Amino acid sequence: MSDGLWFWEEFTENLLYGYRVKEFIFSGESRFQKIDILKLGVFGKTLFLDRKIQSAQIDEFVFHEALVHPGIITHGSAEKVLIIGGGEGATLREVLRASSVKRAIMVDIDGELVELCRRHLPEWSQGAFEDPRAEVIIDDAYHYIKNTEEKFDLIISDLTEPLEGGPSVKLFTKEYYSLLREHLNEGGVITVQSGSSDPFYHKFFVSVSATLREVFPVVRPYWAFIFSFNMPWGFNLASTLTDPLDLDEDEIIRRINALGLESLRYLTPSLFLSSFSLPGYILSSLQKAEPITEENPFLWTESED
Amino acid sequence: MSDGLWFWEEFTENLLYGYRVKEFIFSGESRFQKIDILKLGVFGKTLFLDRKIQSAQIDEFVFHEALVHPGIITHGSAEKVLIIGGGEGATLREVLRASSVKRAIMVDIDGELVELCRRHLPEWSQGAFEDPRAEVIIDDAYHYIKNTEEKFDLIISDLTEPLEGGPSVKLFTKEYYSLLREHLNEGGVITVQSGSSDPFYHKFFVSVSATLREVFPVVRPYWAFIFSFNMPWGFNLASTLTDPLDLDEDEIIRRINALGLESLRYLTPSLFLSSFSLPGYILSSLQKAEPITEENPFLWTESED
Amino acid sequence: MSDGLWFWEEFTENLLYGYRVKEFIFSGESRFQKIDILKLGVFGKTLFLDRKIQSAQIDEFVFHEALVHPGIITHGSAEKVLIIGGGEGATLREVLRASSVKRAIMVDIDGELVELCRRHLPEWSQGAFEDPRAEVIIDDAYHYIKNTEEKFDLIISDLTEPLEGGPSVKLFTKEYYSLLREHLNEGGVITVQSGSSDPFYHKFFVSVSATLREVFPVVRPYWAFIFSFNMPWGFNLASTLTDPLDLDEDEIIRRINALGLESLRYLTPSLFLSSFSLPGYILSSLQKAEPITEENPFLWTESED
Amino acid sequence: MSDGLWFWEEFTENLLYGYRVKEFIFSGESRFQKIDILKLGVFGKTLFLDRKIQSAQIDEFVFHEALVHPGIITHGSAEKVLIIGGGEGATLREVLRASSVKRAIMVDIDGELVELCRRHLPEWSQGAFEDPRAEVIIDDAYHYIKNTEEKFDLIISDLTEPLEGGPSVKLFTKEYYSLLREHLNEGGVITVQSGSSDPFYHKFFVSVSATLREVFPVVRPYWAFIFSFNMPWGFNLASTLTDPLDLDEDEIIRRINALGLESLRYLTPSLFLSSFSLPGYILSSLQKAEPITEENPFLWTESED
Repeated sequence: MSDGLWFWEEFTENLLYGYRVKEFIFSGESRFQKIDILKLGVFGKTLFLDRKIQSAQIDEFVFHEALVHPGIITHGSAEKVLIIGGGEGATLREVLRASSVKRAIMVDIDGELVELCRRHLPEWSQGAFEDPRAEVIIDDAYHYIKNTEEKFDLIISDLTEPLEGGPSVKLFTKEYYSLLREHLNEGGVITVQSGSSDPFYHKFFVSVSATLREVFPVVRPYWAFIFSFNMPWGFNLASTLTDPLDLDEDEIIRRINALGLESLRYLTPSLFLSSFSLPGYILSSLQKAEPITEENPFLWTESED
Repeated sequence: MSDGLWFWEEFTENLLYGYRVKEFIFSGESRFQKIDILKLGVFGKTLFLDRKIQSAQIDEFVFHEALVHPGIITHGSAEKVLIIGGGEGATLREVLRASSVKRAIMVDIDGELVELCRRHLPEWSQGAFEDPRAEVIIDDAYHYIKNTEEKFDLIISDLTEPLEGGPSVKLFTKEYYSLLREHLNEGGVITVQSGSSDPFYHKFFVSVSATLREVFPVVRPYWAFIFSFNMPWGFNLASTLTDPLDLDEDEIIRRINALGLESLRYLTPSLFLSSFSLPGYILSSLQKAEPITEENPFLWTESED
Repeated sequence: MSDGLWFWEEFTENLLYGYRVKEFIFSGESRFQKIDILKLGVFGKTLFLDRKIQSAQIDEFVFHEALVHPGIITHGSAEKVLIIGGGEGATLREVLRASSVKRAIMVDIDGELVELCRRHLPEWSQGAFEDPRAEVIIDDAYHYIKNTEEKFDLIISDLTEPLEGGPSVKLFTKEYYSLLREHLNEGGVITVQSGSSDPFYHKFFVSVSATLREVFPVVRPYWAFIFSFNMPWGFNLASTLTDPLDLDEDEIIRRINALGLESLRYLTPSLFLSSFSLPGYILSSLQKAEPITEENPFLWTESED
Repeated sequence: MSDGLWFWEEFTENLLYGYRVKEFIFSGESRFQKIDILKLGVFGKTLFLDRKIQSAQIDEFVFHEALVHPGIITHGSAEKVLIIGGGEGATLREVLRASSVKRAIMVDIDGELVELCRRHLPEWSQGAFEDPRAEVIIDDAYHYIKNTEEKFDLIISDLTEPLEGGPSVKLFTKEYYSLLREHLNEGGVITVQSGSSDPFYHKFFVSVSATLREVFPVVRPYWAFIFSFNMPWGFNLASTLTDPLDLDEDEIIRRINALGLESLRYLTPSLFLSSFSLPGYILSSLQKAEPITEENPFLWTESED
């Protein structure tokens, strides 16, 4: 029986995901986006931004471990971390798990979202917002980075796809990544959530990769299987020094132990390395990918073409 | 706009996938199952059995390469291959790509399905049914294996999940895998498509693994993300001799070249090995998994509990 | 765009109605039924019981005028009225509009529902619950009528369709209508909401009619077009004396004025009479309809056959 | 269980109707519109134009009897009838049922649609296209009426709602109705299908009424409940002479018998008259309705406002 309350996510005009709503929590609109927080069957509590799934209780740990720890491990001793976006607080939570981290600054444009997550999704942040090492700044990331003098060991870009006219369009460009690089300490690393890595919709993923290659000596795209996103997900790691593929499994285990990350539920030491092995169809597309610039921005579209 | 013709797949009572139908091809029922063949947006031609997606044109190559070639490469020189199920003919197609293969027998219970796929999905089989090395037998796999004297180098189990009362329930048991082992030549390998490997619905995957461990000295679960299945997918490779993890990347590349498999679109040499790196949550469940026996069969259920 | 929150009503396995949810108000379960109160597009605030639409703000006036006033006008001077069911309070509201009414007793089995409607749907009752002429009794209607000594001029049955095992199965039988007749004063009238009057699902409507004919000298089925129910709706009026079809339009206007019902928004004087003109397909079915008894109860089913 | 093939009709952005598809028949596009012909559960064979339901086997008789016979009966002895639109052939079928009719001309713009209906929906036309009294002209109705010298006793407008830019926009104007009047014989009658008569979306219905009032001495709006349209439906009858409300029930029965229409399944003699009794909310809107002119055309919109 399928009657009652459902939430529909229109991934594109051809693909719809329907989620049975077990409990209604919140529905509204901030200055920047539509926000829905619902308790779904299977997925548990789930956050949707602009009607697109962002995080589900069942597997937000997969996404957030995959987003944060490859960068943490590749750097090895990151003390100062910048998170761009990440309103739920789970990226912050994972960053703060690393014992090397002394300061984590999270810059999110949407203060209302951060507040709603704090109130309704405490399972995500698990106290991270209250951690004395954490600082939350409500600001446009572009404005922040333009104006700060701070430098970081690790910058994590946890932004939604660039929708036409939205604030994140300019946050996925060569110009912006150059700015970020200026705010990295020596040996600094940056990781970018980069959209789907499925056989059809992976152009964004490989374009971000090509863009980072314009700015960083080491760029390693990797992927993870996010069940609640209904598709394999792409990330890019860019590094000013260390290549994660130069680390052998023993060194990875040593770093994981040193950082106190033994109890990750997704990212095992062997999966850390394996995540950088991409399917043939992505490798082909990577060769043809074009960098994103302010002049030629990437605009996420729901159409097929 | 979402009006018009759609196909709904109810993965469970809580999760629905909606696919826009671009072109209707076939809808009907064989002696064994409901069969729908549709041309969808994004996915292209797609086969549904009992309203569950089986194969989509966009990424059937991912599924079939992931199902077939880890076994082919691990064995290294498989000449005789048995495919159980695999009605679409794409498993057969991939098997026949390996230059070592001299004979491939495909046993599917549903002759009507095989015929429909031959007619409506020629992109899957690509002539494989006409290959002189191929033989298609319409039979219950259990009955076939009980009565044949043939022995194989590689057996590939490409069956749908065991639904209560359905013919595949007894094809996922310790007793049946023992039977299969008796039909393996020395050095023989078996691979089993084993359902989802997402954080919620992976009990079947790890149970098949535990069952194979009762019968084979080497069992290696692995995974792949099948976009059109909406989730990461689990497979199990069981071997009487070679452990795929003992192969280094050079040896894998050597075998791939020797077998003429250089042009795989999904399974790159490094992805071959990486596929065996599983997430922490699967590793935990593997430790607790129980073997499936005729007395304690596994029945796939759509409910959450 | 169809993403976001929707409520699905499965009228049958073949017919689904989807309503966009503008505002979530309440979702829960009382001792007797699932209750959903939502603000929908077009329909406004809407009450669903067991996932079936009961009343929508846009046209509850159509349903409630059609349910109440044919009985009020046919009787002409009803002073004491019994409402069976009617949890929303709008039936009570309409009854109390008639200036002849001195006392209205509403018996509903579901006190939680009545309370929820009072709180969330004040537009329905519009103060009726607070009217000194009104009395609300939370009780099973069968138990109430069995045990009361009270007699009424008009009894209005505003019950949901009889679902197997549900409390309303015995409230649509010859035996029960005989009981009701014993509680009617001379000249007493009874009206019964009787389900759809569309060409397919009208068996319940004509069966209630046939049942009342076993007990009352005058039985007049009539209909109204309830937009939010997606189908034409059937009612039955049974009378111990007056036949509404004997009233001419002048007399109807006279009664409407005397009762203070000039401002009805649906039931005009000419529509009062016209409502008793039924389509040919209903007239044919009425001839073949069988009475409902405790031994042969009517069970509403969602299947087609 | 709701999996499998469904057809979705988006009445507006807030109201969706879902129909289970039992059998796929045709899906395509003519020069003028999208055409889908499907066999649905409950509804049987069903025609959709531009994804909007046009006719369903279960109750096309309700629509077509309600569209045709009030005009036939009001005129009483129509010999020459013009049908504008009516591609399915069921309007033609009903017209030809009247024994007075000697010639029926049907003008539809979409020859492909007419051909598809002839082939796939023979239950609609039931041989009408082959009747020697019938003539089908594929032409724009405006062009046809501008250029013909023919005069008619009855003109039936069976057109879809006027969508912006579509060919029917100018076929619902005062100017066009004046043209039609010039092609009526003395005593001539015209009936117009006029869209929904529900409490929300009835502006078109009353606007057509107001427009006809500019041109004809007698205009009588009436309604019928079309189950498969999910709402009560409005029609307008305009007459150069006879007012249907001047006919008493005896005269109506006499005419029905003389015309050989005794076996109508929807429109009984008493329902003929009752159909002109409209609800209060329509009467109020009729008073405020404005005529449609070429300068101020009516454009059907799916939005709520």
